[in-house]
Amino acid sequence: MSNLMEKIVSLCKRRGFIFQSSEIYGGVEGLWDLGPLGALMKQNLRDFWIKRFILEEENIVLIEGTCLMHPKVWEASGHLEHFTDPLVECKNCHFRFRTDHMADGRFIGQGKAKEKNQCPNCGEKEFTPPRMFNLMFKTFLGSVEDKSHQTYLRPETAQSMFTNFQNVLNSTRSKIPFGIAQIGRSFRNEITTGDFTFRSREFDIAEIEYFVEPGQDEKYFEIWLDKWGKFFLDLGLKKENLRRYEHPKESLAHYSKRTVDIEYKFPFGWAELAGVANRTDFDLRQHSKFSGQDLSYYDEAKKRKYYPFVIEPTMGLERAILAILCDAYQEIKGGRTKTTKATKEVEILLKVDKKIAPIKIAVLPLVRNKSELVKKTKEVYQMLKPHFVCQYDELGSIGRRYRRMDEVGTIFCLTCDFQTLEDDTLTIRDRDTMKQERVKIEDLVKVLKEKLEAQKLFVKIRNS
Amino acid sequence: MSNLMEKIVSLCKRRGFIFQSSEIYGGVEGLWDLGPLGALMKQNLRDFWIKRFILEEENIVLIEGTCLMHPKVWEASGHLEHFTDPLVECKNCHFRFRTDHMADGRFIGQGKAKEKNQCPNCGEKEFTPPRMFNLMFKTFLGSVEDKSHQTYLRPETAQSMFTNFQNVLNSTRSKIPFGIAQIGRSFRNEITTGDFTFRSREFDIAEIEYFVEPGQDEKYFEIWLDKWGKFFLDLGLKKENLRRYEHPKESLAHYSKRTVDIEYKFPFGWAELAGVANRTDFDLRQHSKFSGQDLSYYDEAKKRKYYPFVIEPTMGLERAILAILCDAYQEIKGGRTKTTKATKEVEILLKVDKKIAPIKIAVLPLVRNKSELVKKTKEVYQMLKPHFVCQYDELGSIGRRYRRMDEVGTIFCLTCDFQTLEDDTLTIRDRDTMKQERVKIEDLVKVLKEKLEAQKLFVKIRNS
Repeated sequence: MSNLMEKIVSLCKRRGFIFQSSEIYGGVEGLWDLGPLGALMKQNLRDFWIKRFILEEENIVLIEGTCLMHPKVWEASGHLEHFTDPLVECKNCHFRFRTDHMADGRFIGQGKAKEKNQCPNCGEKEFTPPRMFNLMFKTFLGSVEDKSHQTYLRPETAQSMFTNFQNVLNSTRSKIPFGIAQIGRSFRNEITTGDFTFRSREFDIAEIEYFVEPGQDEKYFEIWLDKWGKFFLDLGLKKENLRRYEHPKESLAHYSKRTVDIEYKFPFGWAELAGVANRTDFDLRQHSKFSGQDLSYYDEAKKRKYYPFVIEPTMGLERAILAILCDAYQEIKGGRTKTTKATKEVEILLKVDKKIAPIKIAVLPLVRNKSELVKKTKEVYQMLKPHFVCQYDELGSIGRRYRRMDEVGTIFCLTCDFQTLEDDTLTIRDRDTMKQERVKIEDLVKVLKEKLEAQKLFVKIRNS
Repeated sequence: MSNLMEKIVSLCKRRGFIFQSSEIYGGVEGLWDLGPLGALMKQNLRDFWIKRFILEEENIVLIEGTCLMHPKVWEASGHLEHFTDPLVECKNCHFRFRTDHMADGRFIGQGKAKEKNQCPNCGEKEFTPPRMFNLMFKTFLGSVEDKSHQTYLRPETAQSMFTNFQNVLNSTRSKIPFGIAQIGRSFRNEITTGDFTFRSREFDIAEIEYFVEPGQDEKYFEIWLDKWGKFFLDLGLKKENLRRYEHPKESLAHYSKRTVDIEYKFPFGWAELAGVANRTDFDLRQHSKFSGQDLSYYDEAKKRKYYPFVIEPTMGLERAILAILCDAYQEIKGGRTKTTKATKEVEILLKVDKKIAPIKIAVLPLVRNKSELVKKTKEVYQMLKPHFVCQYDELGSIGRRYRRMDEVGTIFCLTCDFQTLEDDTLTIRDRDTMKQERVKIEDLVKVLKEKLEAQKLFVKIRNS
C-alpha cells in the first residue's frame, strides 16, 4: 500500500503535480508546492466549490480575510489556549514528537521503535514530561518584537467570518439562515508532518460558516453533512473510499457540539478529508465578550434577538487533491494502448473527473517529420487554446504520447494524420474508452465544448 | 482629493467591498479583508489574469508555492540583506517611521509635523540614528525557537519560481523563452502603512517570471511592458490615469537591471500600480551558488548552456482593485435615474468594467406587495443564478433599487412588472446607458450571455 503512495509521489514530481518546497535546499518538512498540473487541478477544484456553494446556493457570500489578525482574535477564539498538541522530547537524541502519536502505537516499526514507548528516532525510552505545544506560527507586527506586538498566522479561515459577521450583515442585508464562505491560506506548525502532503504546515482551506437559528442547528447539520458528502462524490471520488467518522463527545474541539469527519481511504489508511462541525454560538459569543461589540442577530420575522448557531463544512484543498490523485490512479499491466507493439510495461491511467483534470485536450501530429502536418496541427492548437486548457506534443511515437497523456488524465487526444491534410478532419480519442472518432476541424470547438460541457475557464460545472 | 478617498472608503465598507481586518478589535494597521463584493471582484481579476497570461499566452505555466520557505532562500535572494527600509524612532514619543518618508517631506502637514524634520506623531525633532529594518515577517518552523529554525514569510512570490526552475523544466519540457506564473499571498511588515489598502502588510501578488536567452532580455522587456500596459487598459482603467515611471539606475532593487513601474493616478497622487523588472540572471545564479544545484539551462537549438535572464511583470491584486474602484467611481449631482421624483442627492455610479463587476445582474420585482409578481421574479432569479452572479432585491422603490445597483456597478437590472404577468417578458436596464429593453423570459439566458459574452463563471473574457 505504501508502495502505491511512493508511485503517486513519483508521478507528482515527474509530471509536475507536486514538488517539495525549497527542494534545492533539501526541502522543508511539511511544505509542498503545486507544480503546473497541480496548480491547474487546484484552480478547478476551487472553481467547482465556488460554483456549487456560492453561485448555486442561496444566501452564501464569499469573503477573503487576512492570515494575520489582531492577537485578541486568538484569545477569544480559544486557539491560544486550546490549539495545541502534546509534545515530548527524547532525552537521548532530543527528537521531538507527539505523545498521542506514540500512545496510539503509530511509531511501532518506524525507524528504531520496535515497541510503543520507544523514540522513533533512536529507540530509547526516556522522555521529558509532555507539554502542550501551540500549533499557531508566531510573528511580530511592526518593528518591536515584544509580547504586545506578537500575533499568529491563522490556522483556519473561520475567525474572519466571525469578526466580519456584522459587516457582512450590514452590507448585504442577509437574513438567517445564511452563510459566509472563504478559501484561503492557513498555517499549522505541526510537530510531526508526513504522509506526503497529507499533514502539511501550509495549505488552503475552503470553509463555510452557515448561521442558523438556535434549535435549528441539528437539522442544518444533517443538511450540510449530506451536501458535503455529495460534493466529494461529484468530485468523482469512489463511494467505497469515503465514509463518515463521528467524533466521540470527549474528543470534540473546544467549540464543537458535534463534528463528523468525511474520511477518505488513503493508501496509508482511512483519514480525515473534510468535516462538518456544529460550532454552536461559541465564536460569536466569545468575540462579543472580548471585543465589547454586539455580534448577536435580530430576527425580524420572529421579533427576537439571539446569537446564531454555526454549522461549518470545511476541507483542505491540497488534501482533497491528494485524495483525487489517489482515487484516480490506475496501473494497467501489459498496457492499454494497442497502437504500439505490446509493451510489457505497466501503463498509468489517471482517471480523474473531467472538471478537475488539469489538461483537457492534447493536440498531436501523427508524426513530426512532415512539416505540413506539424503546421496544420499547430493551427488547430492555436484555435483551441483560448477555449480550453490544451497541450501540444510532437515528441515520440503516437502511442507513447497517448500514454503520457493518460498518465496525467488528459481527457481528449486530438491527432492530425495524413487524412487531415486531405479533408480537414482529425481524430478525437477519449481517455476512458480509448475510442476514436473523426471530426471536422471547423466543428471542433463546438464538439469539444459539448463533450466537456465546458466552461471557457477550466471547469465543467454541473447544475446539480 | 482626499475627500474622494474618504468616499471610496465609505462605499467599500457600506456595500461590502473592503472591511478593516479585525475591526471589532480596533483593527490592525495595514490589514484589510475583502467583503462579498470585493472578493468577487478579486476573483474576476484573478480569472482575467489567468485567461490572458496562462490560457492565451504560449509557454507560461502556473504554479503555486508556499509562503514559508527554507531560510536559505532569503539569503540567496538577497532579501535578508537588502529588503529593508530605514527606520528611526522619535526620542520623545517613541513613534517609529521611515527616514526616507521624512526626507521626502510627505509628513509635512500630517499630524504635528509642520516642517520636514519633525516627528509626525508629536512634532519633536530628535531621533535615534536610522537603522535598516527588514520588512520580512519572521517566524519559527517547528517547536524550537532559535536562529536555525527561524524563517520568513515571503514578501513576493518570485522565489518559488526560481527554486522550482529545474522541476518545471523537467516536468513540462519547456523551452526558452517560457514563463512560470503565480498568484499568491505575500507579506511585508511595512513600517508605515496607509492610503487605505494601498500600502498593506498582506496582499496577493500576481507575477510572471519569463525566462529568456541572455541578450534577448532588453527586447522581451519591451514586449512585456507593452503587454502589461495593455492589460490595465483592458481592465477598463482610463488611459489618462496610467503612466510609466522608469526607475533611475541608482534606486533599482539589488537584482534589477531595469525596472519600469506602471503608475496609477490615485486620489492621493501618482503611485505604483504594477511593474516590469529585468531581474537578469541574478536569482538563478544565486540559488545555484547557495544550493549547489545547477540551475542553468541547456539550449538544444543553440547548443549552449546559460543562466536565462528573467523579465518579471508583477502586480498587487488588492492595489489593482483599489485603482479599479477609484477609476470607476462617479458622482452624478442631482441624480441620473429619472424614475423617482428628482432627488437633490448625489447619485453614485460605479462604472467598473463588465468582466470585473462583482454582480452581473439584479432581478427586481417592480413592487413587492403583489405576491404573484414576487413569485414570478424569484423564478427568474432562480433560473439565472446558476449562470450569472445575480442578486434579488425587493426592498424600496424601483428607482432606489436602481441607484443601489449603480452604486456597486451591477451591469443589468431586470425588472418584472405587471406586463410580465401577461406576456412573460421583462425589462433589461443597462447600467451605462440606462436604456431599457423588453425581452422574453425564455430568451433571457441566451440574450444575457450574448450581452455579457459571459463565462459561466464570472468573467467576460476577450480573445485579444
